[in-house]
Amino acid sequence: MIKVGIVGASGYTGGELLRFLEQHSQVEIVAATSRQYHDTPIKKVHPNLRDSKLVFKDVKAGDIDADLVFTATPHGASMKLVPEILETGARVIDLSGDYRLDEVSVYEKWYGFTHESPLDAVYGLPEIYREDIKKAKLVANPGCFPTGALIGTIPLAKEGLVDNFIIDSKTGASGAGINPSPITHYPHCSDNVTPYAIINHRHVPEMEQELNKLAPVKVCFTPHLVPVTRGILSTIHTFLKEDISSAQLESIYEEYFSGEPFVRILEDGEIPALSAVRGSNYAHVGCFQIDQHGRAVIISAIDNLVKGASGLAVQNMNLMYGFDEKDSLDNYGVYP
Amino acid sequence: MIKVGIVGASGYTGGELLRFLEQHSQVEIVAATSRQYHDTPIKKVHPNLRDSKLVFKDVKAGDIDADLVFTATPHGASMKLVPEILETGARVIDLSGDYRLDEVSVYEKWYGFTHESPLDAVYGLPEIYREDIKKAKLVANPGCFPTGALIGTIPLAKEGLVDNFIIDSKTGASGAGINPSPITHYPHCSDNVTPYAIINHRHVPEMEQELNKLAPVKVCFTPHLVPVTRGILSTIHTFLKEDISSAQLESIYEEYFSGEPFVRILEDGEIPALSAVRGSNYAHVGCFQIDQHGRAVIISAIDNLVKGASGLAVQNMNLMYGFDEKDSLDNYGVYP
Amino acid sequence: MIKVGIVGASGYTGGELLRFLEQHSQVEIVAATSRQYHDTPIKKVHPNLRDSKLVFKDVKAGDIDADLVFTATPHGASMKLVPEILETGARVIDLSGDYRLDEVSVYEKWYGFTHESPLDAVYGLPEIYREDIKKAKLVANPGCFPTGALIGTIPLAKEGLVDNFIIDSKTGASGAGINPSPITHYPHCSDNVTPYAIINHRHVPEMEQELNKLAPVKVCFTPHLVPVTRGILSTIHTFLKEDISSAQLESIYEEYFSGEPFVRILEDGEIPALSAVRGSNYAHVGCFQIDQHGRAVIISAIDNLVKGASGLAVQNMNLMYGFDEKDSLDNYGVYP
Amino acid sequence: MIKVGIVGASGYTGGELLRFLEQHSQVEIVAATSRQYHDTPIKKVHPNLRDSKLVFKDVKAGDIDADLVFTATPHGASMKLVPEILETGARVIDLSGDYRLDEVSVYEKWYGFTHESPLDAVYGLPEIYREDIKKAKLVANPGCFPTGALIGTIPLAKEGLVDNFIIDSKTGASGAGINPSPITHYPHCSDNVTPYAIINHRHVPEMEQELNKLAPVKVCFTPHLVPVTRGILSTIHTFLKEDISSAQLESIYEEYFSGEPFVRILEDGEIPALSAVRGSNYAHVGCFQIDQHGRAVIISAIDNLVKGASGLAVQNMNLMYGFDEKDSLDNYGVYP
Repeated sequence: MIKVGIVGASGYTGGELLRFLEQHSQVEIVAATSRQYHDTPIKKVHPNLRDSKLVFKDVKAGDIDADLVFTATPHGASMKLVPEILETGARVIDLSGDYRLDEVSVYEKWYGFTHESPLDAVYGLPEIYREDIKKAKLVANPGCFPTGALIGTIPLAKEGLVDNFIIDSKTGASGAGINPSPITHYPHCSDNVTPYAIINHRHVPEMEQELNKLAPVKVCFTPHLVPVTRGILSTIHTFLKEDISSAQLESIYEEYFSGEPFVRILEDGEIPALSAVRGSNYAHVGCFQIDQHGRAVIISAIDNLVKGASGLAVQNMNLMYGFDEKDSLDNYGVYP
Repeated sequence: MIKVGIVGASGYTGGELLRFLEQHSQVEIVAATSRQYHDTPIKKVHPNLRDSKLVFKDVKAGDIDADLVFTATPHGASMKLVPEILETGARVIDLSGDYRLDEVSVYEKWYGFTHESPLDAVYGLPEIYREDIKKAKLVANPGCFPTGALIGTIPLAKEGLVDNFIIDSKTGASGAGINPSPITHYPHCSDNVTPYAIINHRHVPEMEQELNKLAPVKVCFTPHLVPVTRGILSTIHTFLKEDISSAQLESIYEEYFSGEPFVRILEDGEIPALSAVRGSNYAHVGCFQIDQHGRAVIISAIDNLVKGASGLAVQNMNLMYGFDEKDSLDNYGVYP
Repeated sequence: MIKVGIVGASGYTGGELLRFLEQHSQVEIVAATSRQYHDTPIKKVHPNLRDSKLVFKDVKAGDIDADLVFTATPHGASMKLVPEILETGARVIDLSGDYRLDEVSVYEKWYGFTHESPLDAVYGLPEIYREDIKKAKLVANPGCFPTGALIGTIPLAKEGLVDNFIIDSKTGASGAGINPSPITHYPHCSDNVTPYAIINHRHVPEMEQELNKLAPVKVCFTPHLVPVTRGILSTIHTFLKEDISSAQLESIYEEYFSGEPFVRILEDGEIPALSAVRGSNYAHVGCFQIDQHGRAVIISAIDNLVKGASGLAVQNMNLMYGFDEKDSLDNYGVYP
Repeated sequence: MIKVGIVGASGYTGGELLRFLEQHSQVEIVAATSRQYHDTPIKKVHPNLRDSKLVFKDVKAGDIDADLVFTATPHGASMKLVPEILETGARVIDLSGDYRLDEVSVYEKWYGFTHESPLDAVYGLPEIYREDIKKAKLVANPGCFPTGALIGTIPLAKEGLVDNFIIDSKTGASGAGINPSPITHYPHCSDNVTPYAIINHRHVPEMEQELNKLAPVKVCFTPHLVPVTRGILSTIHTFLKEDISSAQLESIYEEYFSGEPFVRILEDGEIPALSAVRGSNYAHVGCFQIDQHGRAVIISAIDNLVKGASGLAVQNMNLMYGFDEKDSLDNYGVYP
């Protein structure tokens, strides 16, 4: 049994952390912080967590008495909180982008902030760094697009079969967070498809950082907001350098992810569906078709708030404390 | 050919006024005002009006040189502008709630403002006040819910067949305007139904005002935001005081609206559909079923931005100037 | 540990039964039947149940060797299967309408079938019949609309405070089942609201049957298909016969449902949201406002596939076998 | 004034043809055929066309007495009707795929039918073949995906700047037609993204046929069904062979489409939106961004039922008869 705190618990990722942690067999939640909702019961903000007795508190991060703290805070805010939390002796899983990039200069270029407190962190993707995560003091939880994109590209990159990936992702609106904005305003977002950050999304350097540790590959990435609440479906187009079959392509993925508790490779050309992973920590990878011009298509689907954020963070926690990796995460997706 | 101005042209109702007026055979648009978008081409805000050469200007309402001005301004703002526009000699169609209620005290109670400039206005529902509208200097364009509800209830009220109506309306999110808000945030609004202003929507006194000129009836009204962009479907439940048949019920409506250019009574129990009126100025009324307990159900469907706002305003303009009542409004709905 | 079978496991309610039962601590699934998908792994039909090893089989209902069988079969089909299952000694929870109505003549009038095998069944709503369900051989699982409507009306009916209810329900499209049809075709259903069975839905006699055991009340019910996948939001309009306050109204509900594991009364006028119960077995009841004309509004929200079907069936199973009533059902809703 | 007939008028493209043709200044509709709806008023099937007096008739194609016949019939059906219509002396615009491909063998490979009546036809894209269309006896109206894709790629191909295009298209569900199917069933389609025909959509040879007349380029195409009713947004990814700027890229498109009545190039990096073209015959093309790896992104948006089908067909008719090219097509899109 460990004590955990959540800093910035009133947003969507905070709500999902609470959903899982309240049902975790080994966890006691000792703090759910929010400046805006100080003294408000969390069920007034996360109406699904109706039976929770927790109340938001405006507590200083460094005053939380916990074994582990999740920082579900905006980019640029985490770097101000993480050092003081680590000083209390707690371990940290940071859900912002502040500790994902190895090079401070790359961070500063893409995020536009001066980094005030660079620290060594483990990139929290168990499908690559499971052993390092177990021992980490600070885990940088991956971005939502990189999680789906890396799971769909790592095996191919590792085999050296490609020079570049064109990743055309379709994301649900919850990825934009709980605060209203013009592009997530219902009359704008509904019945529409909105490409954005067409050539310069800041998740690109994160994807390239991890893929380039395996092989020199270029990532061309364009995200699209689609009228969906949860989920990221990534269509990965790539020209293969060798003439392999669709079956061989599939087996490369099956081998790489063999034994993974949350990655499922779909057989027989089955196409991943967002509704199959909705609300769950599973990533589905499928398609593996190759067209007449040598272009392969791989498709991955995740729930951006779960495997793409809070579920992955809880999976990392399970690894850090030696809990069952699926504790509180073993529910299936809600289909349809 | 008349010169018209639009004050507050950057919102959804402003955009729809522009859509119709740009295609009107008798109108020249001389001003489209916006404080926020001064000097911005309107196509940057209303991306459908791609060929328009108009540019938003931050012009004082009293400085517009026009025969007619539409005020597409918020409740409480119109009352500050309308008197100075009338002083220029222009006629005015006001799309806010400021001039819809006969009694200032009722306005002040439901809208929460002190009314600074009460004026005589004609309630702009041609299905009741066609002749008065033709001569009006100031037309108060009806609210979106009252338009759909009145078209669905007037004939029954006039016949003295009912004591009260329970009106359960389902509205699209464009009714909330162009500004983002928590209830129209896509992840909240999508896949959801949000009842609001359950017993005290300010369109209630407007409905009762008009119905009570015909007969003493009570209106119990509850609106629901549904995941739809455009449209209001009103389900009107009422207990009939006399034992009439469904066919008789239908014929009461057919007779009342006979000759109306924009109201269509659906025969044979056909149910109105939002997609049948989407983008158009038509109101569809249908159902006319009566259950074993004597409850009649009438259903009306309109596009809240067109018959419920800007299309109706243009229809009123056509009446005021003796134009063909359907000029620029004769397009069918976009189905599906 | 008990052995259970599911007859008709390839539809949406079959899929939800499988989702819960696969994670139940006391259950072994021994049969999931489907004629259409004989020998197909269930994950090919229910893509969320990716890790399931189950395979559909075209097995005769009477040949299933189980302690309990769920019949997730169409109205009119269950009556042909239930007797032979009971003969094997198994208990049955029937999800069709075949055993919900006490009077065979009422069933035959509303469903249009001759009832071939009338049997004594317990109406499976634990909020009324918990003790009877525990001992039942045959449980008739309630209809989706009645479940939401009864939870929203029983307390008021029992107090004798009303003569009739006008229930205006908004349902998601999964309520129509897994088979495509014109009204659930995306271009028709999206951006639309479709009232149907306006005055004669066959769930009306079911609601009246249960309410009239408490008091003589009439039910006027109209369902609307809204562009939502899961959920039923029922807006219950009723004129109160006594002058009670909103707080008193709320306390009548709190008292009635006190101790219920799956019914939550929302305080302070909070309005139920479909997304708060999505995927979960909870029913939320709230609003309790009373307008100037004495009309009270109560709003209930359920997931039609869970509390409105399969989750409720599993809750009934838990009662029948003395399991923890929340076993496999204790997950929160998926919000947003 | 010409007389026109529509064969297969009860589907979505038939409905859109009727919507435009009923408001055309030079057209009399003499036949709207349907086998299924013989003698049914068209307003019962296309509920938006409420004022139409037309009635579906089950008439043999060869018995229609018209100057022009639109065949809105399925692939494989048109080839059986077109010859007999041409024999009556009428000209034909065929909306199926039967006459789009120059090579019969290519048609037979991709469509799976033996072609019974190959004929010379003009490919009906005015942006390439305006002059030929004017004189054509038989026009093959382009496919919906090719229309959006070709408008987004022709200028670049013509300049010889690229070797291949990766076209990742997102289409609304109306593209699948009026008949319900599992992938357009609301609970499946909503809140989901469904890639299909990943590497072998039959619109690929159509795109390659037209592009290869300009330059040798390969087309890698993958369509995705998104939860949208109308519209195709195509994200075109391509690696440029020369180092040109984003501004140069834009000007290549501006020049090519200069003077086109229905193609609009968006300036300043503005991104096309489906809602800007919804219900209208406009195609919007924009983006023109180039990333650090030399990948250019061009985005086109059309309404699949209008510019992608029936509006384009009417535009072709206007050309064939020397009418104003915008007659009945000059309405703006319905935004939001």
